[in-house]
Parts: sequence; structure tokens; C-alpha cells
Amino acid sequence: MKYTLNDIVKITGGEVVGDGDTVVTGVASLRKATGDDLSFARDEAHLPAARESAAGAFLLPACPDGFDRPAIVVENPFLAMTTFLAVLADAKTAQPPGIHPTAVVGEGTRLGEGVSLGAGVVVGRECAIGDRCTIHPNVTVGDRCRIGEGTVLYAGVVLREEVEMGCRCIVHPNTTIGSDGFGYLQEGGKHEKIPQVGTVEIGDDVEIGAGCAIDRAALDKTVIGSGCKLDNHCHIAHNVEIGENTIMMAYGKISGSVKIGRNVILAGDASTVDNIEIGDGCIIGAGSGIAHSMKPGEVVWGKPARPIGLEKRIVATLGHLPQMRRDLKHLKRELEKDRDHA
Amino acid sequence: MKYTLNDIVKITGGEVVGDGDTVVTGVASLRKATGDDLSFARDEAHLPAARESAAGAFLLPACPDGFDRPAIVVENPFLAMTTFLAVLADAKTAQPPGIHPTAVVGEGTRLGEGVSLGAGVVVGRECAIGDRCTIHPNVTVGDRCRIGEGTVLYAGVVLREEVEMGCRCIVHPNTTIGSDGFGYLQEGGKHEKIPQVGTVEIGDDVEIGAGCAIDRAALDKTVIGSGCKLDNHCHIAHNVEIGENTIMMAYGKISGSVKIGRNVILAGDASTVDNIEIGDGCIIGAGSGIAHSMKPGEVVWGKPARPIGLEKRIVATLGHLPQMRRDLKHLKRELEKDRDHA
Amino acid sequence: MKYTLNDIVKITGGEVVGDGDTVVTGVASLRKATGDDLSFARDEAHLPAARESAAGAFLLPACPDGFDRPAIVVENPFLAMTTFLAVLADAKTAQPPGIHPTAVVGEGTRLGEGVSLGAGVVVGRECAIGDRCTIHPNVTVGDRCRIGEGTVLYAGVVLREEVEMGCRCIVHPNTTIGSDGFGYLQEGGKHEKIPQVGTVEIGDDVEIGAGCAIDRAALDKTVIGSGCKLDNHCHIAHNVEIGENTIMMAYGKISGSVKIGRNVILAGDASTVDNIEIGDGCIIGAGSGIAHSMKPGEVVWGKPARPIGLEKRIVATLGHLPQMRRDLKHLKRELEKDRDHA
Repeated sequence: MKYTLNDIVKITGGEVVGDGDTVVTGVASLRKATGDDLSFARDEAHLPAARESAAGAFLLPACPDGFDRPAIVVENPFLAMTTFLAVLADAKTAQPPGIHPTAVVGEGTRLGEGVSLGAGVVVGRECAIGDRCTIHPNVTVGDRCRIGEGTVLYAGVVLREEVEMGCRCIVHPNTTIGSDGFGYLQEGGKHEKIPQVGTVEIGDDVEIGAGCAIDRAALDKTVIGSGCKLDNHCHIAHNVEIGENTIMMAYGKISGSVKIGRNVILAGDASTVDNIEIGDGCIIGAGSGIAHSMKPGEVVWGKPARPIGLEKRIVATLGHLPQMRRDLKHLKRELEKDRDHA
Repeated sequence: MKYTLNDIVKITGGEVVGDGDTVVTGVASLRKATGDDLSFARDEAHLPAARESAAGAFLLPACPDGFDRPAIVVENPFLAMTTFLAVLADAKTAQPPGIHPTAVVGEGTRLGEGVSLGAGVVVGRECAIGDRCTIHPNVTVGDRCRIGEGTVLYAGVVLREEVEMGCRCIVHPNTTIGSDGFGYLQEGGKHEKIPQVGTVEIGDDVEIGAGCAIDRAALDKTVIGSGCKLDNHCHIAHNVEIGENTIMMAYGKISGSVKIGRNVILAGDASTVDNIEIGDGCIIGAGSGIAHSMKPGEVVWGKPARPIGLEKRIVATLGHLPQMRRDLKHLKRELEKDRDHA
Repeated sequence: MKYTLNDIVKITGGEVVGDGDTVVTGVASLRKATGDDLSFARDEAHLPAARESAAGAFLLPACPDGFDRPAIVVENPFLAMTTFLAVLADAKTAQPPGIHPTAVVGEGTRLGEGVSLGAGVVVGRECAIGDRCTIHPNVTVGDRCRIGEGTVLYAGVVLREEVEMGCRCIVHPNTTIGSDGFGYLQEGGKHEKIPQVGTVEIGDDVEIGAGCAIDRAALDKTVIGSGCKLDNHCHIAHNVEIGENTIMMAYGKISGSVKIGRNVILAGDASTVDNIEIGDGCIIGAGSGIAHSMKPGEVVWGKPARPIGLEKRIVATLGHLPQMRRDLKHLKRELEKDRDHA
């Protein structure tokens, strides 16, 4: 990258202070920036750190007295930085438009305008890929999938047959969508597979991390609502339904037929038993194991999960447990002694 | 799909009640079915739900009085549905037979009859792929692998060199079989790799979920017995041996050289230390950490795992722990007071 | 493989005892070896097991009286075996040199001498791939990546754009390096993506297991120091920095911006909160959840983690917890009774 402050101010808004022809070739945090980097002070409290920083140019909420280095002064420097970063990120991840000669597209598949299919991409039969989708190299899309406009599938992603995906989704490398749910009939110690003929439906603006697995429903649909964000290594079992704008950090593990509401936050490594319901706006602490349905707005932590206040008290008390046992033994002996005296 | 009840009854057995020419184009649960769907009542207790359902046709254990919609009456509707679903699933996942022009097959590799190799598949040298195997797009099979008849490898699966796999196995997308075990010699703070030259042997009728990793043995074989079923994201370290028909739910983590018996059930997220033995028929609760060998038939839960009855009592008591500490302090004070009085 | 003892002694050093023309075609542990296998006794304590073994030839620390089978006597048989195994492993995993006709290499990319690019490999634009790198089939390397000499990427690995990787690294199948970090701005219940334009820098001699995900930094670099070894299914969030020679067993989960020192050992399934620092030489027990920074050399265990001695006492005491509660209730009643009497 190579931008002048005059280029950047057109993207971010705000006002250039100092030399607008100053060139930056990278972006970095205040602490790590060098003279070629643009950096930013999130708010006035970070201005002293900006003074200390070696960055070549800055996005600042205000220009402090005697600050003599080139900057853009803008109301919300973090938002301005994010806006600029989005332009940068698009440039960094841009793929050549069109269909790479080594890509394979099945019969009856419709490709929208401006679609990019990378080298080694395989798209099955009778799919519909929306306008401006970017499908990176070595992705596999099964038969009869439907993908909305502007969705990005990174390398190594696999969509099995009939998966439906909304617009502007992002799926990170080596994630699987539409694998069979885990269902068997026990017959004399053997496990007969229950065929999984449902599918997966993913809303708009969903982002899914690397190495996730989202199973297809047995009969109906596994559903991930619009605006959901899943971190790496998440596991969504068959028939799960997740409401809009729910966030799941790395290693979320949702068992079969669980219903999760909107705007739920699951911290990393949280898991659930199957067939429960988690209400809107619940917050689930890291590593929690949810064994029962949760009412909207509940905040829990622990394995098994408890109301967060109680769990915190338990955790704090556990450090005293060995001493408690010694105290208890001592008390017993004392009480016995007292009685012997009496 | 498009089936009449007369078509379906040939697959499921039973007897058509009502119009056998009724067409269904999907399959759904009673709750979610629409007029184009076939649904089923698992047993007589589900007949009221069948009456309420919008499904266009049914598999029923009996035709209740006044039920006037088309149905197939069959002794075990769930089994009948499963039988029909298997036909459906085969149709949905069917791949074109033969070798896609973009597939690459190494020298000396023998392909059985009716094998399907999808686009972008790479099979190494001197492999043997059994009759009717289906290898989906972008799968990589290393040199000298052997795969039994009728096995299905979904897109993105990687078998490294010399892996042996039985008949009728199913491996879901982006799973790895035959990665190096994790073994190093510590030499002055550095870690010298112990080369892993063993392999992996997988029996018949094994199903392995998406995103799993099964490491090759250091010298010998990592073994997964026939009939085992592994859910998504399982990790099997080097030299592990698992007996027949064992079930491992999502995120099972088995450390090096562990021996697991037959018909063991490991619930989700269970893990073990290395070098232990878990007897036949053991049941291991969700999230358990197994630190010691287990005798056949033991049932444990917890991290570290304890006999399930004890663990349940501990979990139930933990909620009282903060109060117990307060009580204990109070008792101490009271006892001291009594003594001061005495 | 097919080696005589005379061949092997040239690799391992030591001295042949018995027939140097003895041929071995495999390598196995003492317990599992057959007459065609080479095996080894780690030290004198294993000599009785060597006597019992069916192996056809041995690496031994000394030749015991009356041991009449062919052997190589060498000071450190384990090291000798490892040296020989490395030769074997190289032979087993060797790939044809050169660029497979189905591999795709982007414009401006420089390939070193002796590079092997397998079938279906896709390398982006303006990359630099060092001498003697082996890139197995169906790997995807994004634009502007740099990979040092002798590095091996197994099938299905994905490096996104601009990742930098040192020399002699090994990355196992289906691992992702450079996926976006998980960062959003909350705006009225919706989650606006913070673009992740940093990258990942991996040192020399790093080994990364199968199915891992290493996220790129938001702005700067996620760093994995030279000599680090990561097992399968590890997750490294954005902006993490890990020092040299640190070991992370399966399912290590490191949250954003965590700094981990040198020669740290994280046992399996360990996790951290974000923004903490873990000093050099710390040891973290299996399944631990690290919630606070750790000073160099600390040894912890538990979730949340505590000093290992305390955690062990807590774990030991927990088994008594239900009885402690009963004792406590009993004491209370007794004390009340005493007072009633008084």
C-alpha cells in the first residue's frame, strides 16, 4: 500500500493538519508503528502515547499543542481507522474477477455478475452464486447450493449439497457447512446411521471463522440468523437454530436441536447439552457448560453453568476448600473434647 | 425429490391408506412440515401431533379414527422413515461415476469398479481404492493408501501416506487422517522431532465427522475399530487404539497410546491423559477429563472424572460452598465464644 | 522400505553384532514387532523386553549375554532410532520435485531451487517460496506470502495473503494461517467488522498440527517464535506473540493479544483470556483456564488456573465435599443442642 494523507482524508473525512503529501505505506498500533506507518489515538487519553509513537502520521481526535507531525483530525479516529482499513483489506484480499481456467462449474449452475472463482474451485450442479461473490482457490461447493450477493468463501471451505447462504457473508478457510448431523439408531450394540437429509440456512452478514463445522439438519434446517459472528473452531450440531446477531467465540459447541435467541454472547469454549433453549440477550461465560434452558437476559458461568454471581463466589471459595476441610476436622475434635470435659 | 406414496411404500413396506398417488417433494418433522412434505409419527403417542401437522402425507404406526389424510401405516415408522431417508440421501449426495478430467491419479494406483473421483481429487502412487468408493472434489489421498469398498470421502478430506481404511466408511469434509503424532525429544530447551513412521488403520463402517484429526502412530498403527462413530472436531493422538462400535461425540480428545475398548460412549468434549486403558462399555460424561484407567462398564463424569454418582453430589454441593464457608466461620466464632464463657 | 543392518549402521553409527546382511522391511516397538521389523531397547532396563520381542533386528545399548539375534550396539539407541526414522520418514513422504502440471502459480512469484508443488496447489502472486520447500497437493498459498527454505506444507493447508514463514517448518493438513482475527464494533446490537489487515509471522523450525487456525493481527503481526511446536486443533487469536521453543498440546486456545514467553509448556486444552502475559518457562496443566498474567516459571493447573499445589489439594478435597456438608450440618446441630443444654 502507498497512500498520502490527502488520499486518506477522502476516505475517512476530517481535516489534514501538516503536510498532506506525507506518504504512509503501512498501518500499525502506536506502540509498534515506524516512520512509514499511519497510526491512531482512539481518544484524548491516548494523545500522550501518540506523542511517544514513532508513527509517520496519525488519526487524532484533536491536535494537541506543539504536536508537529502530520495528522488527520477527525471526530472518531477509531471509526475513521476502521473505514480506512476496510479499503485496505479489500485491496489486500482482492481476487481476479472471472472464472479461473482450472475452476469447474457443474451443469445448470448460474453465476451472478462479477463473480470470482479462484483456481481449483469446484461448484456443483444447479447452484446459484450471487453477484460479486468471491470464491477463493480450492473451495468446494456442493450441488444445488444457493449463495447470496457479495459473499466471500476463503480457500478450503466446503459447502455440501443444498446449503443456502445469504448476502455479504464471510467464511474463513477450511470451514465445513452441511456435514451430516451425528445421529444413529442403537441396534444390538451397533449404530445404524440415521440419514441426514435436511440442510443448513445461513442469513445475511454472517461471518464464520476458520475450521468450523456446521451440520445439516436431519430433516429440516440448521439455521444461523443474519448478523451472527462465529469465531474459529465452532461446532453447530444438526437442527440448531440461532437468532440474529448472536456472537460465538472460539470453540463454541452447540448440541443438537438447541435454539439460541438473538444477541446472545457465548464466550470461548462454551458448550450446551441438546434440546434446550437459550433466550435473547443471554451472556454465557468462557468455558461454560449449559445444561438447562435459559430465560432471556440470563448471565451464567461455570461448568455446569450457574448464575454468574454465584459461580464467582464458588470460584473464590474453592481456594479456601482445603483449609475449610482442616478447620472442619479441627472443630469436630474441639467439640468432642468439650463434650468429654463436660 | 418427487415421490408418490405408492413409490415410497415399495421402499418402506407397510400399507397405503388414502390416495397412493399423493406426491411429496420433501421430508420434514411434524412441526415444520408443509403440504408438500412427508412426515412421520414415531409411535402412537405422536398421533395427536400428526393430526396437528400440516404435512401432506405421513408414516404412521396406526391410522387413528377420522384421520383422513394420505398415509402409510407401518409397524416401525421411524425405521421406515430411516429406510426411505437413506434412499433420499443417496440421491442427494450422488456423484457422477468415473474419473473427473481434473482428478490426478498417481502411478501404480488401482481403482475398483464404479469408483467416482471428483474434480480436483488427487490420489497418490500405489494406492488401492475399492469398488464403488466415492471421493468428492478436492480430496487428497497420499501414496500407498488402501481404501475398502463403498467408502465415501467428502470434499477437503486429507489422507496422508499409507493410511488403511475399511469398507463403507464415511469421512466428512476437511478431516485429516495420518498427520504426524506429536512427539519430540527435549535437547537443551529445543524440541527435536521424533519422526512418525507408523500409520493409521480404520475398520469397516466407521464414520468420522468434519474437521477431525487422527494422527499416525510413531512406529506401529493408530487403530479405529469397525463400527466406530466419531463426531466433528475429534482428535486422536498417535498410537491410540479404539475397539469396535465405540462412539465419540464432538471434540473428543484422546491422548497418545490410550487403549479404548468396545462400545464405549464418550460424550462431547471428553479428554484423556496418555497411556491409559478404558474398558469395554464405559460411559464418559460430557467434558470429562479421564486421568486414570477405567475398568469395563465404569460410568464417570467430571474434570478430573469421578464415579458419576459422586460427581453429581459434588456438583450439587458446590452451589452451597460459599454458604458452607460462612457457616464454618460462624461455628468457629461460636465455639470460641462458648469457651470464653466457660 | 528394505534395509540391511549394514545399511542402517551407516546412518545410526554403532557396531553391528551378528549378520549385517539381515534385511528389515519395517520398524516397530518391541511389543508389536515381527521378524521383518527393526526394533530398539531404549536402555538396559529394556533388554529383557528385547529378548521377548519377535523383532528381526535390534538397536541395543549393549549386547546381553547369550543374545544371538542381529543387532546394532550403539550408545543411545533411541537417538539412533530417531536418526534412522528421519531417513525413513523422508523416503515415505517424498514428493516428486518440480511443479505439477495442475499447480497454479501467480504472477511475480519466485520459486526456489528444488521446490515441489503438488497437484492442485495454488500459489498466489508475488510470493517467495524458498529452496527445497515441499508443498503437498491442494494447498493454497495467498498473495505475497514468503516461505523459508525446506518448509513442508501438507495437503489442504491454507495460508492467506502476506503470511511470513521461516525455514524448515512443517504444517499439517487442513491448517489455516492468516484467517481474520475476531474483532467487531458493537453498534446498536449489530456487529461491525473491524478489518484485519495485519499478518502472521512464523519463525524457523516451527511445527503446526492438523486443523489449527492462526489468525492474522488486526494491524501488526501475530508472531509464533522459532522452534515452537503446536499440536492439532490449536487456535491462536489475533495479535498473539509466542516466544521461542514454546510447546502447545492439542486444543490450545490463546485469546487476542496474549504474550507468551519462551519454553512455555501448555498441556492439552489449555486456554487463556485476552491481553495477558505468560512468562518464560511457565507450565500450564491440561484443561487449564488462564485468567491472569503469569510470572516466569510459574506452574499452574485448573479452570480458573491456580498454583498447581493448591489446585491438587482442591481436587483432592472436592471428593470429600458432600461429606463435609453433612459434617457441617451435624456440627451446627450439635452446637445448638449443647447450647440448649447450657
